[in-house]
Amino acid sequence: MKKIAILGSTGSIGTQTLEVVRANGDLQVTALSAGSNISMLEEQIREFKPIYAVVYEEEKAKELKIKVADTDVKVLSGMEGLLTIASMKESDILVTAIVGMIGIRPTIAAIKAKKDIALANKETLVTAGHIIMKLAKEYGVNILPVDSEHSAIFQCLNGERHREIDKLLITASGGPFRGRTKEQLQNVTVADALKHPNWAMGRKITIDSSTLVNKGLEVMEAKWLFDVSFDKIEVVVQPQSVIHSMIQFVDGGIMAQLGTPDMRLPIQYALYYPERRPLDGERLDFAKLKNLTFEAPDVENFPALSMAYEAGRVGGSMPTVFNAANERAVAKFLDEKIAYLEIIEIIKECMEQHKVIGEPTVEEILETERWTYEFIEGRW
Amino acid sequence: MKKIAILGSTGSIGTQTLEVVRANGDLQVTALSAGSNISMLEEQIREFKPIYAVVYEEEKAKELKIKVADTDVKVLSGMEGLLTIASMKESDILVTAIVGMIGIRPTIAAIKAKKDIALANKETLVTAGHIIMKLAKEYGVNILPVDSEHSAIFQCLNGERHREIDKLLITASGGPFRGRTKEQLQNVTVADALKHPNWAMGRKITIDSSTLVNKGLEVMEAKWLFDVSFDKIEVVVQPQSVIHSMIQFVDGGIMAQLGTPDMRLPIQYALYYPERRPLDGERLDFAKLKNLTFEAPDVENFPALSMAYEAGRVGGSMPTVFNAANERAVAKFLDEKIAYLEIIEIIKECMEQHKVIGEPTVEEILETERWTYEFIEGRW
Repeated sequence: MKKIAILGSTGSIGTQTLEVVRANGDLQVTALSAGSNISMLEEQIREFKPIYAVVYEEEKAKELKIKVADTDVKVLSGMEGLLTIASMKESDILVTAIVGMIGIRPTIAAIKAKKDIALANKETLVTAGHIIMKLAKEYGVNILPVDSEHSAIFQCLNGERHREIDKLLITASGGPFRGRTKEQLQNVTVADALKHPNWAMGRKITIDSSTLVNKGLEVMEAKWLFDVSFDKIEVVVQPQSVIHSMIQFVDGGIMAQLGTPDMRLPIQYALYYPERRPLDGERLDFAKLKNLTFEAPDVENFPALSMAYEAGRVGGSMPTVFNAANERAVAKFLDEKIAYLEIIEIIKECMEQHKVIGEPTVEEILETERWTYEFIEGRW
Repeated sequence: MKKIAILGSTGSIGTQTLEVVRANGDLQVTALSAGSNISMLEEQIREFKPIYAVVYEEEKAKELKIKVADTDVKVLSGMEGLLTIASMKESDILVTAIVGMIGIRPTIAAIKAKKDIALANKETLVTAGHIIMKLAKEYGVNILPVDSEHSAIFQCLNGERHREIDKLLITASGGPFRGRTKEQLQNVTVADALKHPNWAMGRKITIDSSTLVNKGLEVMEAKWLFDVSFDKIEVVVQPQSVIHSMIQFVDGGIMAQLGTPDMRLPIQYALYYPERRPLDGERLDFAKLKNLTFEAPDVENFPALSMAYEAGRVGGSMPTVFNAANERAVAKFLDEKIAYLEIIEIIKECMEQHKVIGEPTVEEILETERWTYEFIEGRW
């Protein structure tokens, strides 16, 4: 029985991970964690009976402890709690479904404790890819991507040779505003931006998908996960989100992974890799689908993608700035403090003002995050 | 240096195989063979300097012998010649690019001599799959598909587990007459039928593509190559011929192989498997491609596909009848002796009149072929 600990079990990926656990019956949940949603976490504790439950906010952790006093679960809190469940001896694999750079330290702890990582936390590789991938190699740990695009590429690479990759083709839906001009994007509301055409996702990632920041983060993540240069990563807009991503090889042959949009597939694939377990759910019906369309990304009206390539190519602490600036800007947009297009302006300004640190340590990455937050607070 | 013998070097697949040899520089051609085109064969002998050259027609072989008397090549003829080059000790791999059931015995000889088979001869598996696959297993020989659809499936299966296959999705262009009704097919001419929308192929296979007989043969071939039941093989019409075929797995995930239509890719893939060698040529440009469409095959107006499934499910000698009847009917159509729709009528009538032999031997397969030819000669 495979034992899994989940960072971020009350979010979109976390709850779908638990659906996969529920459907299979041979996975044991050793730990759950949430930021503050203790009512959902309580339900999860009662159903999955983990050894540990972590609530990041200390006050909420205390509340939870009282609620679940009748169970055997040990309630922990803060980063210390996350580090404990990341490296606990009772688990085999850590699902990092937490959002934000908060995922970096637990991921490192898990790798050092020789746990495989089912990676759904983008920020870890975007900001600390140079540290994580090196460590994973050193400790012989698998980094199993959960994102649908990276999982697709990972599946396409199965049985192939890395040196025969010509380029990665990361697909993008183009988001809800595909086809709009900058002028038309000026008055976008939070409600508009939260409508994703194909995937049911969390709020922050839905906004990131609309700006193409999400695709930019995925490009940076792919660079580390698959050890290719940015010149070998291309984004293809495929609005139906049926092709989840592709690899073109040196012979011109392209391997693609397709399916209905269902995050349970990449989650399950990561948990059971290299095995594929049966998964219920709608199958792709090509006769019904009728049509797949393709276009180049609109980098003119959605400059975030080019900015991400730039941040990635500069490297060092710059991807951290790109990510942290976006994180804070999106939060401000969701709070209706700034306009939609200001998200991009904020990222741009932060990148311009940042003094890059090469090969940053975790401390320097977190320091860069703080710098970015402070820089933004002073201005917007 | 890998050493290859080619059955059918002057045909479409044969000449493209030699293009691959020419482009790579580390393949040695040990034998070439042709039916009767000795002028092309002579050129190939002078360029590739094989040990043997076989001309199936004895008279033509004598002519060739005189023409190439100044070279070191040994000229052979007939089935004996084909069997010699199939099993010659100087070669590692046999490319069976010959058309027709004539390919069966040389393929068996090659397997027994432990040569890998780059299989481009459909009839071998359609009619004798039960013999060939068993022998290949016994002798530890790889059967490497050269057909673009089977190569695609073979590539999709790379790194995957056979037991996790849900179904094979064989793509079809739908041929030049896709969308036509039976009435509209009545007056189709040879010239009409020879226009294939996407692939440059031989005459017979182009007609087979227009009737969907070719797709039916591919379905039967896939059944043997990939050891799946007919219920697990589905044909999807994909008119742009960009997706070469796919596999759906038990988790609903689909792996697909895509590319520009270029037979050199599957040929090269088979010759170097599991390595992918660089291949020049046009790459797929998704922004330019814009659109991929899908539809269900039109089995109403193109009944050959359902007939092939039926022949395959009946099994035994029935696929031989399907194939032999089609072979003879297409020859008659190309000679303008019968109308286009009579191809299907002839196959149907032969299948109805045939008394099936279960698990036929090679002799019984060839006997069934003769029975089919004679049956047709008496009537059309």
